[in-house]
Amino acid sequence: MDRGTSAKLSELIHKERIAHLGTLRGGAPMVGMTLFMPMSDFTTFYIHVSRLAWHTQDMERDPRVALSIAETDDDRPDPFTLMRVTIRGEAVRIPNEDASVPDLKMAWLGRFQEQAINFKLADFSFWKIVPRDARFIAGFGSIHNLSAQELAAAGAA
Amino acid sequence: MDRGTSAKLSELIHKERIAHLGTLRGGAPMVGMTLFMPMSDFTTFYIHVSRLAWHTQDMERDPRVALSIAETDDDRPDPFTLMRVTIRGEAVRIPNEDASVPDLKMAWLGRFQEQAINFKLADFSFWKIVPRDARFIAGFGSIHNLSAQELAAAGAA
Repeated sequence: MDRGTSAKLSELIHKERIAHLGTLRGGAPMVGMTLFMPMSDFTTFYIHVSRLAWHTQDMERDPRVALSIAETDDDRPDPFTLMRVTIRGEAVRIPNEDASVPDLKMAWLGRFQEQAINFKLADFSFWKIVPRDARFIAGFGSIHNLSAQELAAAGAA
Repeated sequence: MDRGTSAKLSELIHKERIAHLGTLRGGAPMVGMTLFMPMSDFTTFYIHVSRLAWHTQDMERDPRVALSIAETDDDRPDPFTLMRVTIRGEAVRIPNEDASVPDLKMAWLGRFQEQAINFKLADFSFWKIVPRDARFIAGFGSIHNLSAQELAAAGAA
């Protein structure tokens, strides 16, 4: 992936706020919208989810997930040219009493200012998604399969 | 689901052009962005995909899919309030010589005018996704699990 493509991937991940999270549910695919927050170096992606959400129940049973992030549809004539990336990896629940939670909470509320309510509900927790690999589609015919290391290189660029 | 909620679901599905398609890949979740076109009564959702795309390869091995459609992020303070729906079902490939293809192609090109190029490529085909059920999140705490019949009722409303 050249420097320009890498910069596009970094811009995509930093700019978007919502993702579609794929999980296994009864052995079949399930996908649901979620908010996300990337570590600046793309080595970890955080989500803050309720135990009542299906994807949370799914991750508790099988940690394998796929996180799909697409450029916001801007009504361009051809939405097939929207950039998108899928990050595949494992999801790990962060206990609410973990030492990292206060900083995560501050960062999350900086990003999603109206989400304070969900920190008052006992059923919400942070989960971290640790990438195993990624597939970046920068446009028609511009498809890049990336290792976790290559994804992190785009984050550091 | 009351009439107002049903109207919201119908509006969401009619308004959006992109979805995130969940498939099984090596037994693990995979999700990728795709364009979609609903039948007006929501009994079928069409996609037009390349055999080179991972999700196409996945559907050829296992037809179970989930199609996640979210309201376009409009930079509102709280993106958690964006409406979204997940349709779970089975994907079936429509042979390019099928009698339904000319009409589908015309409808698809009416919706995605710049996609004519993909009809010149031999590796693209329509697939239909036949819903088994759906899960509609109309907002915080407004969660609706729908049968295929209830989804179709929202389409017909």
